Amino acid sequence: MGLDSFTPQKRFSTGGGLPINNHDATAAGRNRGVPRGRQLHKTFNNIKITILCGFVTILVLRGTIGVGNLGSSEADAVNQNLIEETNRILAEIRADSDPDDPDESTETGFNPNVTYTLGPKISGWDQQRKVWLSGNPEFPNFVNGKPRILLVTGSPPKPCDNPIGDHYLLKAIKNKIDYCRLHGIEIVYNMAHLDKELAGYWAKLPLIRRLMLSHPEIEWIWWMDSDAFFTDMVFEIPLSKYEQHNLVIHGYPDLLFEQKSWIALNTGSFLFRNCQWSLNLLDAWAPMGPKGPIRDEAGKVLTANLKGRPAFEADDQSALIYLLLSQKDRWMDKVFVENQYYLHGYWAGLVDRYEEMMEKYHPGLGDERWPFVTHFVGCKPCGSYGDYSVDRCLRSMQRAFNFADNQVLKLYGFSHRGLLGPNIKRIRDETTTPLEIVDQLDIRRSVTGKTESKS
Amino acid sequence: MGLDSFTPQKRFSTGGGLPINNHDATAAGRNRGVPRGRQLHKTFNNIKITILCGFVTILVLRGTIGVGNLGSSEADAVNQNLIEETNRILAEIRADSDPDDPDESTETGFNPNVTYTLGPKISGWDQQRKVWLSGNPEFPNFVNGKPRILLVTGSPPKPCDNPIGDHYLLKAIKNKIDYCRLHGIEIVYNMAHLDKELAGYWAKLPLIRRLMLSHPEIEWIWWMDSDAFFTDMVFEIPLSKYEQHNLVIHGYPDLLFEQKSWIALNTGSFLFRNCQWSLNLLDAWAPMGPKGPIRDEAGKVLTANLKGRPAFEADDQSALIYLLLSQKDRWMDKVFVENQYYLHGYWAGLVDRYEEMMEKYHPGLGDERWPFVTHFVGCKPCGSYGDYSVDRCLRSMQRAFNFADNQVLKLYGFSHRGLLGPNIKRIRDETTTPLEIVDQLDIRRSVTGKTESKS
Repeated sequence: MGLDSFTPQKRFSTGGGLPINNHDATAAGRNRGVPRGRQLHKTFNNIKITILCGFVTILVLRGTIGVGNLGSSEADAVNQNLIEETNRILAEIRADSDPDDPDESTETGFNPNVTYTLGPKISGWDQQRKVWLSGNPEFPNFVNGKPRILLVTGSPPKPCDNPIGDHYLLKAIKNKIDYCRLHGIEIVYNMAHLDKELAGYWAKLPLIRRLMLSHPEIEWIWWMDSDAFFTDMVFEIPLSKYEQHNLVIHGYPDLLFEQKSWIALNTGSFLFRNCQWSLNLLDAWAPMGPKGPIRDEAGKVLTANLKGRPAFEADDQSALIYLLLSQKDRWMDKVFVENQYYLHGYWAGLVDRYEEMMEKYHPGLGDERWPFVTHFVGCKPCGSYGDYSVDRCLRSMQRAFNFADNQVLKLYGFSHRGLLGPNIKRIRDETTTPLEIVDQLDIRRSVTGKTESKS
Repeated sequence: MGLDSFTPQKRFSTGGGLPINNHDATAAGRNRGVPRGRQLHKTFNNIKITILCGFVTILVLRGTIGVGNLGSSEADAVNQNLIEETNRILAEIRADSDPDDPDESTETGFNPNVTYTLGPKISGWDQQRKVWLSGNPEFPNFVNGKPRILLVTGSPPKPCDNPIGDHYLLKAIKNKIDYCRLHGIEIVYNMAHLDKELAGYWAKLPLIRRLMLSHPEIEWIWWMDSDAFFTDMVFEIPLSKYEQHNLVIHGYPDLLFEQKSWIALNTGSFLFRNCQWSLNLLDAWAPMGPKGPIRDEAGKVLTANLKGRPAFEADDQSALIYLLLSQKDRWMDKVFVENQYYLHGYWAGLVDRYEEMMEKYHPGLGDERWPFVTHFVGCKPCGSYGDYSVDRCLRSMQRAFNFADNQVLKLYGFSHRGLLGPNIKRIRDETTTPLEIVDQLDIRRSVTGKTESKS
């Protein structure tokens, strides 16, 4: 079955032939639709919040009544002020618009006669960059023989709907700070909506383009979701393997070309070379993204053409898969579909095996024996509704965090007591000759000079 | 009045002649005691939480009742499971000990016959480091002519008591990531309790020591509190000014030497050179820190000897001031008390002037015209009880965040619409020649080569 190219304004092909298997969606993929059971899950969560707040109300009231000696009228006045203050704080934090905002819709009104673009067409970027690099030797694109990488991640600018979400975003960025410090990688943590039309999971596209054009010294832009953790602190991406490629993405060629599965690739962790080809791919990728009728219609095309995809608006991952399938000859020679290590490692099959890994293997492998990245697809700790139970997700993320943190703490002589709790224990006595330990244990010393891929 | 040296087990001098002025404590300093009004404030906060949860309970109940069609017995069973699940999650997250923990008290039991130390005495660290550096040229302590700096910050491993606290910890680390990327500074974000006795604000001491000894390639360790934001993204610390010094700390010599004020210096943002002198100072500083009777007794000495200090356990800042005063001749020749720029900038006098600053001045000044660091002393967004209203603190932190973020977004063509809200606006059209903008606006280009202090 051929796949038509997607262009807005044309009649979309909705012919199909691919079976849609909901099992794929919930078990192994990034499910962003509203699957069966979602409403029930939503109700459960509401009940949970209610019960929790009810308990807190009762407990605090009991404590308060026993503490103060406020008169009732004074208490009423205090209560009223506090109610107002609380409401004001919450309203401002969660407001969709700042009091200073003009009417935002004037800037982004949907105009069906205009095809969306990421920006003015850039040509000759490779040459522009080359000239700039030679004129700016203090900003080289290679440092110590390694190409400069910029890791890009981020989260929305407002507090998470679920408060525990911000705590795990914090742990996730601490985890990334650790990995990147050990490997000389720079980080951009984005909390700004650069383009209102390409919001949500599409927001990475304008961001990646903007960063490429603003940082010519960067050789590779590495996008990583906020719900992905580094779990192999030693492993390094074997960039020399990709000298002939411009996009490195985790996936499975058979799932992609034979099954046309909507989870054949994962856009939660991938690398783009900073070059003209990448700008072109971003331009070709973006048109399904603008929120509203375009994204909705595009979603239907994607569901009709990709195996296992539920019905929902177009997401960036499905759109990329569709693009690479429908314009295979144009793009695939420069795309490396990687699965020799876990550039993206789906969490559900990994987190329960950490103890076994610690017993049998060691960091540096990056694959199923010691996963490079553990990605909490479907957990959505920041939002209200994930595809898995909150309990399971939080426990699993904490385990991944500790599993990684142990590898960092080792140099300092500590380790977590277990994979779930926050406490640490000393694993090595202090010494008057600390530099011996540094020589043995500093992770950066074990990766210096390594450029070949691990088999 | 002479100040006695502090050694545990000896009878402490509690005589004093310094007036204690509570105004200093609450208006301008780090207030960690339980001043008058604290109990009332605590009651107010309890009432706030009660009201808030009561509202949420009511609202969610109204929403829930209208949504589902669960039978009452099924709802009861669901409720019971959810109550248990929620309680279990909260209990595990907030537990003081991991289920796998042995009884922790066996490791840290207070023994009055043992004087606390940070670790075995290290001698000849300067020589050890020098030898190591010459043997490890791939880990130089100077890069591009600049000494290597490691910024160290952190927060507790458990979720904040106040959920909004985690969101502002996230914003604060994003802010630090931005500054450090622009200035080639590495970051360690600590979330581990390295030493149970030196917990809380004292935790930075064992951490700094541990990092010095584990990172001989680092020339300066820069401790920065989690509630401090960079607000001048261009300004660089003029390290060449401190070639003869080993500790750089913000403060006022007259407040220190003449008034012996407990806020004469601020330990929320300071730099230690990685050298033997620093290890010695840390060793001399630590003895007032161990939690329990020692810290309590030490607090009394500090209150008695430092002007304005309320009565509470010993804190690291007061202890350092006391140490430097009582052993002035031993230490002060290597301590630079800096106030030419805001290595620490007390927030209350700054945050309301940001618009005026944007109108009149520009980044790079680092002083009262454009503060280098805005430090939210007393706000405690992560805890339950700060010294200022939650509303005022959150608004002010958001303003500082946006004020700084504007300086980063400028390169990318964006700016926040106002200092309070999350939304941004485009301030420059996209162009087909993006490298011209990079040449004009990249902050790293404006600091390259600058090593002199700014007057």
